[in-house]
Amino acid sequence: MSPRADALPQTERRDQIVDAALPLLREHGRQVTTRQIADAAGIAEGTIFRAFASKEEIIEATLARLADASVLGERILAIDPTRSLEERIGAIWQILLHRHEEVLALVFALGPPNAGKGEAADQHRRRHADYQRLVVEAAGQVLDADRRRLAVDIRSLMLLINALAMQAAHPMLRESALRDQATVVDLVLHGALAGGRS
Amino acid sequence: MSPRADALPQTERRDQIVDAALPLLREHGRQVTTRQIADAAGIAEGTIFRAFASKEEIIEATLARLADASVLGERILAIDPTRSLEERIGAIWQILLHRHEEVLALVFALGPPNAGKGEAADQHRRRHADYQRLVVEAAGQVLDADRRRLAVDIRSLMLLINALAMQAAHPMLRESALRDQATVVDLVLHGALAGGRS
Repeated sequence: MSPRADALPQTERRDQIVDAALPLLREHGRQVTTRQIADAAGIAEGTIFRAFASKEEIIEATLARLADASVLGERILAIDPTRSLEERIGAIWQILLHRHEEVLALVFALGPPNAGKGEAADQHRRRHADYQRLVVEAAGQVLDADRRRLAVDIRSLMLLINALAMQAAHPMLRESALRDQATVVDLVLHGALAGGRS
Repeated sequence: MSPRADALPQTERRDQIVDAALPLLREHGRQVTTRQIADAAGIAEGTIFRAFASKEEIIEATLARLADASVLGERILAIDPTRSLEERIGAIWQILLHRHEEVLALVFALGPPNAGKGEAADQHRRRHADYQRLVVEAAGQVLDADRRRLAVDIRSLMLLINALAMQAAHPMLRESALRDQATVVDLVLHGALAGGRS
């Protein structure tokens, strides 16, 4: 290890700082100090300010990292297509649940990035549209072999799974939400009515 | 009509002010002025300050009004029990959708009442538990005749319907959510798999 903290390339340095900041932001919200982030990353505070102009920029970079849905698509695509439909649906639900937990924990710790209006809200909507398109595409590949067994299109199926995952991940709702994978998968596939479609 | 605005009993006066404040808070958020609220209510600004100590108190009263789930229970109980199961499920979804739209529009306009911690968050969790108990009880009565046709308990059924209603009502998600009642009811009752339970 070099004794000079700035020996890392800038991109890696920024990644390292975001890695250290994420759990601290979740715990302390905007009250976190760059001193705490530097300590957690094992670097000097000055090194942070060579990679980021301000604490606000670190927060932005952390939100951008979480908003990047490509990792999510990769995780879904990594599901073994030879597993049963139930197992694949359950795995997708778990991936979405984990992601919503990560994002919601940070959003609740930081307060909302915007008030539902203006440029920030438009950006949020675009990110969400990207997120949804990516999830539907990846799930479409993972579930392709069973497409004919489904009564609904992949998009509707993903909206249903996503709604249940979001409710289960929400800090205010999670205690009472459906969090048992077998129950969720059964509801998603078979619905609430015994006996099925007539 | 008396020319004296304070001729109303205090409770009615407060209700009148909250009625006037609700749409203004949704539009302007915390930037709304007591002047605007007074104008909308057709009363003098001084009359507001005989009913409420501050704008913050009006906001609190508005949130408390929305958080009062008893109206929600009454609306669900008013559903005609002789209608088909599909129609009753659809009606419950509509009631929850409308309520989430009201609450989320205000929460997004005001910013979150808390950061997921502390007394405000505990209060929010208690309110949510009340809300859930009330919805499950009311829905239990409205769906009682069909209980044996259901493969899941009323609580799980309500969590499913609520998750879909919340996603459809969310300001950031509603454009792409499932908002067609027939599609929602079909998914809720029959699930995503063609052919039903084996």
